[in-house]
Amino acid sequence: MVTWNIPDSRKELSRYYTGAETYLTAVPGESPLDDTANQLRRIVEALSLTTPDAAHIPLTTERLRDIADELERYAEPATDRLLGMWEGDGVVRHDPVTGPENTLAPPLVMHVAEDGWVEGEVTLGLPYQGPPAAVHGGICAALLDAALAVANHRAGNNGMTARLEIRYQRPTPLYRPVIVRAKQLRHEGRKRFTVGEIVVDGEVSATAEGLFIARRTSVAAE
Amino acid sequence: MVTWNIPDSRKELSRYYTGAETYLTAVPGESPLDDTANQLRRIVEALSLTTPDAAHIPLTTERLRDIADELERYAEPATDRLLGMWEGDGVVRHDPVTGPENTLAPPLVMHVAEDGWVEGEVTLGLPYQGPPAAVHGGICAALLDAALAVANHRAGNNGMTARLEIRYQRPTPLYRPVIVRAKQLRHEGRKRFTVGEIVVDGEVSATAEGLFIARRTSVAAE
Repeated sequence: MVTWNIPDSRKELSRYYTGAETYLTAVPGESPLDDTANQLRRIVEALSLTTPDAAHIPLTTERLRDIADELERYAEPATDRLLGMWEGDGVVRHDPVTGPENTLAPPLVMHVAEDGWVEGEVTLGLPYQGPPAAVHGGICAALLDAALAVANHRAGNNGMTARLEIRYQRPTPLYRPVIVRAKQLRHEGRKRFTVGEIVVDGEVSATAEGLFIARRTSVAAE
Repeated sequence: MVTWNIPDSRKELSRYYTGAETYLTAVPGESPLDDTANQLRRIVEALSLTTPDAAHIPLTTERLRDIADELERYAEPATDRLLGMWEGDGVVRHDPVTGPENTLAPPLVMHVAEDGWVEGEVTLGLPYQGPPAAVHGGICAALLDAALAVANHRAGNNGMTARLEIRYQRPTPLYRPVIVRAKQLRHEGRKRFTVGEIVVDGEVSATAEGLFIARRTSVAAE
């Protein structure tokens, strides 16, 4: 039940995309909560396009308060949910960058590309704005951190971020498809060296270099 | 009409806080959209505490879809709203890290501290999770990038992020108050050198070093 709408521009980019099994992040549309998050993304975006004193806002706020009251009554203890979140298919459906169940995530959906690269395309609207008409620098950093982690996952060598360096070449525009890509260059013992970049219209807008360190208890393939 | 609830722990930290005029980010509660965003934050958090197959989710999704449909009918063109967003009191109410009008923002509310430092306290829940029970590394980077920008604003020398390096010492826990602080060290011509850190229970969990470059057209105080 994959209802995610892959835009035409993506098909061309994704010439190495051969089916759902090459997804490296949770596939949008496979959980009922993905649609809930999609509606919330629409609301967040529409509110960014609304002046604060618009006449319909107070009533909207009350309707949302009613829904929040109800959902909180049904909510499970965080400790219970924390465990449940990590069960399943090895990807995190709730990740704040790649998780289709998480309203905060665009989400960035990543798949296998060539030569060990992983990549995903995403278009960000006003809620992600930093400088005028551009993606917030911190959001670019979050996209890249997540992409580097996916590249490590793809390489079979996970780790926690120890150091992340982002270089910003030019603004990353809103409302335009951007490619986020990453690759693990090498690993030495528990260290993983991984790079990534954001590409807009064929030009790099930001690059990332990351050092990740595997936990001593992890079963990394060394 | 400041309705932001400053927790007790903050009062002690904020011994240099002398009133609303020392806020360096938009003050939560001053716009009707802040309350809308607060209800959405409650919904996003409650959904993170809900199993995907919970019986009440489909109806909730339909109620949110109705609200999204309505808000989109009222939404202004992005270009119009983009201009309006930047009018006002010199702070950005819609920023995805510090903006109370933006559901994606916790928000991180920052104020003046001593010796040129700026700081804010924030508590993050499951929607911001990366590793189990810890804040996502990309979210830490976004918090720090925003804090460094606020420190530049405070120093009177704004700039665009050119380089941002984050070092992660230990996981930043969820559901615990964390302090995000930053300071501009110096500026040379168009370059600004700024540092920051996230502090939890008195221990640093992540540090940031940033290089920011002022636009040639800016009226920075050099």
